[in-house]
Amino acid sequence: MPFHIVREVPGSEARLGRLSTAHGVVETPAFVAVATRGAVRAVSVDDLRSIGVQILIANTYHLGLRPGAQTVAELGGLHGFTGWHGPWMTDSGGFQVFSLGAGKLHGVGKIASIFPGETRPNPSGASLVELTEEGAWIRSILDGRKIFFSPEEVIRMERLLGADVILPLDECTSPFHDEAYTRSAMERTHRWAERALRAFEETEELGPNPEQELWGIVQGGAYEGLRRASARTIAGLGFPGFAIGGSLGKSKEDMYRVLEWTVPELPEEKPRHLLGIGTLEDIVEAVKRGVDLFDCAAPTRLARNGALLTFSAPGFKLNIDNARFRRDARPVEENCDCPTCQQYSRAFLHHLLRAGELSYYRLATIHNLRFMVRFTEWIRKELAQGRLPALAEAER
Amino acid sequence: MPFHIVREVPGSEARLGRLSTAHGVVETPAFVAVATRGAVRAVSVDDLRSIGVQILIANTYHLGLRPGAQTVAELGGLHGFTGWHGPWMTDSGGFQVFSLGAGKLHGVGKIASIFPGETRPNPSGASLVELTEEGAWIRSILDGRKIFFSPEEVIRMERLLGADVILPLDECTSPFHDEAYTRSAMERTHRWAERALRAFEETEELGPNPEQELWGIVQGGAYEGLRRASARTIAGLGFPGFAIGGSLGKSKEDMYRVLEWTVPELPEEKPRHLLGIGTLEDIVEAVKRGVDLFDCAAPTRLARNGALLTFSAPGFKLNIDNARFRRDARPVEENCDCPTCQQYSRAFLHHLLRAGELSYYRLATIHNLRFMVRFTEWIRKELAQGRLPALAEAER
Repeated sequence: MPFHIVREVPGSEARLGRLSTAHGVVETPAFVAVATRGAVRAVSVDDLRSIGVQILIANTYHLGLRPGAQTVAELGGLHGFTGWHGPWMTDSGGFQVFSLGAGKLHGVGKIASIFPGETRPNPSGASLVELTEEGAWIRSILDGRKIFFSPEEVIRMERLLGADVILPLDECTSPFHDEAYTRSAMERTHRWAERALRAFEETEELGPNPEQELWGIVQGGAYEGLRRASARTIAGLGFPGFAIGGSLGKSKEDMYRVLEWTVPELPEEKPRHLLGIGTLEDIVEAVKRGVDLFDCAAPTRLARNGALLTFSAPGFKLNIDNARFRRDARPVEENCDCPTCQQYSRAFLHHLLRAGELSYYRLATIHNLRFMVRFTEWIRKELAQGRLPALAEAER
Repeated sequence: MPFHIVREVPGSEARLGRLSTAHGVVETPAFVAVATRGAVRAVSVDDLRSIGVQILIANTYHLGLRPGAQTVAELGGLHGFTGWHGPWMTDSGGFQVFSLGAGKLHGVGKIASIFPGETRPNPSGASLVELTEEGAWIRSILDGRKIFFSPEEVIRMERLLGADVILPLDECTSPFHDEAYTRSAMERTHRWAERALRAFEETEELGPNPEQELWGIVQGGAYEGLRRASARTIAGLGFPGFAIGGSLGKSKEDMYRVLEWTVPELPEEKPRHLLGIGTLEDIVEAVKRGVDLFDCAAPTRLARNGALLTFSAPGFKLNIDNARFRRDARPVEENCDCPTCQQYSRAFLHHLLRAGELSYYRLATIHNLRFMVRFTEWIRKELAQGRLPALAEAER
């Protein structure tokens, strides 16, 4: 059994689990560190190991453009190429097709950020994507050349990349798409899922990792009927695990409702990944609603922007650029066991950031990733004792 | 005895030595890693320890501006502030006074780079410095504010920073300064050296490290009479060690001659540091002429620019950005024991650099620093066997 449920919390969808892959076990709920181009920004695989990161997710669109999936395969697949020999996931590039296409036209990402009184989406640029039933023509962000992403081509690339868990091409929608458009995109996603499954079966011997699993992606936007239908349809195709993708609505409450509609339609015994979500609050709420895995670039991006995660600051973020840290000899967080907090003061990190020293980015990223690892460890401990995680408890 | 000569090579000035400081022993000849603002660019103190770096040099001008010497003192001095508990040096800021002043007017650094047929210096900007007998008024590169650097103020700051070896304020000259100007700058440097010595004696209890040593700096440009006179004068002041600073002429040959004039005038039993010099060839030639320590930012800067040091490439540099490394599964250098070569291929480093991944800078810097450490280890091994180092031998 690749996924084993260790304990459930009665009266909720929450569960403690263990996902087995050819490259190691992932204790769930788990934080999946984002390594879009094969490397988590600013840190090395040694760093990731030393702070207990369990699993990484790379992106098929980005790696397919550079250095190319074939090149990665020749160099030992993602595991051999990058030196991370633990579990890998690859996202399909479906979100990039969206964010370079409809996402630009609507000026949105996974959740709409709209100001009070604002009603219409604001374009952030022209679409670089042409979507057809066959697949997506998409301009390379590297050289402008048009490349074709079909469900079959994406599976071929993911076979070559060799991640342990791979995802099929999907069509994401925006919170500003109406129900009719969202339905047709969802139906296309279902047809693409079937094509991906066939392609997956036909390419078993292509890549460096024959033990790959292809998980399905649920779409359907923030529409209850669509989410439920998508979850049932994708579950019916027999995938060994599931990702929840696409638009999660216009607020956190919308997102929680999407999870409440989707998760109960999925087979209980299989793992569930929530794509691209990851504030502390979101994670706690998603765990309670039955999500097992999360990936999110926020902890690493925040680190690079000077925001260090800690329970001792409002909003869980300490802005290390602030002048009040200039002479602060304390570590970022008193109880943190990360290599950064064990060796460096707030004053020194403040100095490194102000001086533009590259080493700042690594030390800050190490802290934030360790924080996320410890946070999910705490969630698992709560679940192991039959309790639902409550953010107010974590702060103590 | 803080400096102990372990072995001399007859017929040359070369020697194997051991410099003892309050924070550890430095085997010489030694490469001093440049940590201008208290950190070697892109790496951490753990990295430096793991690859055998022995000693770092920081800059009083840069740290004096930010975060300020008093702040560093309050946070435990350089050792406590940065986490590098091994030996530290600080340069005085004399070179910054030069490079923001006459260096800009003459468009030069330590050695003039002049093209054939070019005779006059080309200014690279207006001077930000006003030099008087009392000291230097210099504009902050951070906020434009004018600050005063005197021999006494520099010693006060270096006492607060607490490095193990500190250097007095000097007036550097350019290869385009005539003999008369170079002489008057040298004489001022000698007067400043005396003031620095007095200030050093009067501030013994000021900083976090009472075991500091103040070394003298020899000036005199590329003029034989001046270099010899300066070495004798500075030696006569009783400093426990010496740095060779300022203009080293218009070519490598000029530099070697400067060393041949200077070193024999210095007391044999005391250590000699050559400021800001460090190609492999320069190091070998300087060692043969009796130099014990070198600092140079080139290995770390080259790494960030994609040039990885190796004996297997022409000019000892492999340009990892080159497309021919895209599928090269070999490490940067086959016999290198650095963490980068032990874990990563040329193809992956090429990918990280092309993708703009910050982790590239650290991995590349680790390799180049380890290369320099191994290179100086090899030099010491040659000297230990009574041989002069020859670059052609190192390449084998």
